Amino acid sequence: LTSSDVEQAGSDLQDLREEVADTTKEIMKLVARRIELSKRIGEVKSRGSLPIDNEKVEDALLEEVLRECERLGLDQQLGTKILATLVRESKKAQRTRVGGKQQQLITPMVMMAKATEIEKGGRKLIRLDVGEPDFRPPKAVLDVVSSALYSYKTYYTVGRGIPELLSALRSYLAIRYNYREAAENQLIVTPGGRFAVYSALATVASEGDSVVVIEPNWPAYKEGLDYIGARAITVRTTFDERWEPSPERVKAAIRPNTKAIVLSYPSNPTGKIMDKASFAEIVEIADDRGLTVISDEIYNDYAYRPCPTILDDLPKKYILTSSFSKAWSMTGFRVGYSFAPAETSSRMLKILGLMITCVPDFIQRGAVKALEAVDEVSRNSRTMKERIDATSAELAEIDALELIKPEGAIYAFPQAKDPGFDSSAFAIELLEKKGVTVSPGTGFGDYPRCFRVSLGQPQETLSAGVKKIGEMLG
Amino acid sequence: LTSSDVEQAGSDLQDLREEVADTTKEIMKLVARRIELSKRIGEVKSRGSLPIDNEKVEDALLEEVLRECERLGLDQQLGTKILATLVRESKKAQRTRVGGKQQQLITPMVMMAKATEIEKGGRKLIRLDVGEPDFRPPKAVLDVVSSALYSYKTYYTVGRGIPELLSALRSYLAIRYNYREAAENQLIVTPGGRFAVYSALATVASEGDSVVVIEPNWPAYKEGLDYIGARAITVRTTFDERWEPSPERVKAAIRPNTKAIVLSYPSNPTGKIMDKASFAEIVEIADDRGLTVISDEIYNDYAYRPCPTILDDLPKKYILTSSFSKAWSMTGFRVGYSFAPAETSSRMLKILGLMITCVPDFIQRGAVKALEAVDEVSRNSRTMKERIDATSAELAEIDALELIKPEGAIYAFPQAKDPGFDSSAFAIELLEKKGVTVSPGTGFGDYPRCFRVSLGQPQETLSAGVKKIGEMLG
Repeated sequence: LTSSDVEQAGSDLQDLREEVADTTKEIMKLVARRIELSKRIGEVKSRGSLPIDNEKVEDALLEEVLRECERLGLDQQLGTKILATLVRESKKAQRTRVGGKQQQLITPMVMMAKATEIEKGGRKLIRLDVGEPDFRPPKAVLDVVSSALYSYKTYYTVGRGIPELLSALRSYLAIRYNYREAAENQLIVTPGGRFAVYSALATVASEGDSVVVIEPNWPAYKEGLDYIGARAITVRTTFDERWEPSPERVKAAIRPNTKAIVLSYPSNPTGKIMDKASFAEIVEIADDRGLTVISDEIYNDYAYRPCPTILDDLPKKYILTSSFSKAWSMTGFRVGYSFAPAETSSRMLKILGLMITCVPDFIQRGAVKALEAVDEVSRNSRTMKERIDATSAELAEIDALELIKPEGAIYAFPQAKDPGFDSSAFAIELLEKKGVTVSPGTGFGDYPRCFRVSLGQPQETLSAGVKKIGEMLG
Repeated sequence: LTSSDVEQAGSDLQDLREEVADTTKEIMKLVARRIELSKRIGEVKSRGSLPIDNEKVEDALLEEVLRECERLGLDQQLGTKILATLVRESKKAQRTRVGGKQQQLITPMVMMAKATEIEKGGRKLIRLDVGEPDFRPPKAVLDVVSSALYSYKTYYTVGRGIPELLSALRSYLAIRYNYREAAENQLIVTPGGRFAVYSALATVASEGDSVVVIEPNWPAYKEGLDYIGARAITVRTTFDERWEPSPERVKAAIRPNTKAIVLSYPSNPTGKIMDKASFAEIVEIADDRGLTVISDEIYNDYAYRPCPTILDDLPKKYILTSSFSKAWSMTGFRVGYSFAPAETSSRMLKILGLMITCVPDFIQRGAVKALEAVDEVSRNSRTMKERIDATSAELAEIDALELIKPEGAIYAFPQAKDPGFDSSAFAIELLEKKGVTVSPGTGFGDYPRCFRVSLGQPQETLSAGVKKIGEMLG
């Protein structure tokens, strides 16, 4: 390099950088202009009392942007990300004009906080809100955890999990699901199913992407996607269609920026189990479109007719999440796991390493033991079946309600016959007047007429709670 | 509304939406043009062998964008976010031209994975890489955890933590730090200090923001910021300046998009303790500039001269993170806590609720008991002091090394006298030839000449390890 070369490079750089700065400012100007236009749209909508969200317009814009990216040779992921930022900002601008307010959703977690607060005051409640079985964890698990403590299994483990648990999970998948191909680097031990679900979503979707979810469902999927900045595209199922999701509608929901489909059967909150044929069809749609199937199989041991699992016939891209919380009644141990292709797993593991380091060693030892506790899982499952039968019958006696009898999971999700029923108001009133907690349907999607009754209580408590629900509605 | 009003609104909406779409496409065009310019910059840099990163240029651009936002009445947070997306994309474009490769950093976690892999093969290693005391957790904690298990403290708790632990933490802060004002809604029980740190960073900074960190430091701060899409602005401290950070340089590091300053004393990896005066000065700078002080005080009980804490004199905005891992030697329990203003705490709690639900109840009971285990903490601290003394003396005998004697924490961070020393290559060779693991300095910042020796081993093991380090360098 001669000194004049260096000088030339310096001056070229100078020019190019000025152009970059100008272009950047130009972009900001257009962003400001776009927000101005959004405000005007907000005014027009306000005049016409039109809603802010308009999926069709958003979809059309996404298509246009992706076409433009293609034309310009621009990375589509970048395009969708910038578009997501712009759309979010536009909605904010419209909202200030339209004056739309966002109602606080009463999710199961909000309900739990409210109830715990009241219980602190000494009042005894009938808690039908928490999605937690009342069964005791297997005795052998307590023994193993305690003995692991006293033998000082109290230090860091590798992030993925102790080899003993990874190996036990492999055997478990082989015996329980007849799936023999799981490798250790496909498994991760997580602090609960919730973290498995979050890291699955965060690995598959980025800001500006979208993921198909079937409603009603566990709010954690949407919460996770919101946190990531991705959009949940909901496929609505209804009481009238017996909570049956149609593969056609799942297919129609897929957008060009869709990365995954979340399935979770038996369903929280409806107890619905998807047909094997529909499940296979959705997997095929995912395969065709290059999407990941995230299958949350936490309630699989509470299934009262054959329940499909992705282990039956693996999708091309998949993440299975599960947990010891429900089948083993080990909610308070905070231990779950995920199973995914090695490369996907290693990306999920990075998130775990960054935030958590590892799950406590002595708890992982307990999880190993839990996998042997087949009898307890069967007993829990049988008991839950009895509760589903009894509670469904009791709910059927309440004139104001109707129920699709759950086929699995640990909940009932009745719907009020009154089309104007507001389950949030009802839940608050029920708590205050009768000391019974349930979770309003709006926590699981757009289901104001429904509410979730958790069956994680002894039958006497459940019956007492349902009786009070009946009184309240009578 | 008359039908012609509605018609007019519809047609206005149509026009405005077309303008929005056009503006959006115009933005994409400019983004593509900007990337094209970046590629050309990459070519010029490649010709002139210039580095891709240029902080001054980046800073100037940020200032210009913020001024432009102000002029346009555009939200500055939005401007910095879009700019961050553009800059990241530009660097990517430049990198493909310059062909720069990113070296994998050997962080303590990477080293741990490598070593564990080797140990699986049966080889016995001297592990001086893991930042984990070898002390046993307090016996009383084991007893309480075990008995909590058998009394079925095995269900969900509220996300923030059980009232008993929150109350015990309040008393602890009062007794240990003479800080009596902590309210329960300012405290959160977290799965380890790591999660407290992540949720602190994620609450304070968003994509496009920046946070000042003082290097060398624990890699989790940068990893967290990377994950969020925020930039870590590093204030470098050096061996020659005895790892002393200057408040002036901290002040100079602050950018218009800076949201927080991370402090952590005693320091991992240097064992440095900041002067009370410098600490107070940095807090004042933060207060002046409206920044949050995130103070990671996990090593506070391993301090061998008075160590400042934000509890001495609270900054206006603050988050304290800590953990039971080090002082109580409870790494494998994964339990820590944070203390922050109620509003900040409630934002952090949302992240915890979304990802984790809660820390296991029986572990929280153990943490309550740990707070009473004052004797064990003192004993651990005294032992660590002896190790620092002995190991510092032993390291001083190695001609090739120099060391600023640690004033606290549980590490030594020697520097090779050879300016061309590559501690990553050294660490790998030391592991392979001598079976000793240390953490290369590049894991903690730009410190290729340094490496971290963890003192979390009995003195004989430490001495044996240091002897082998000496042999390797001799």
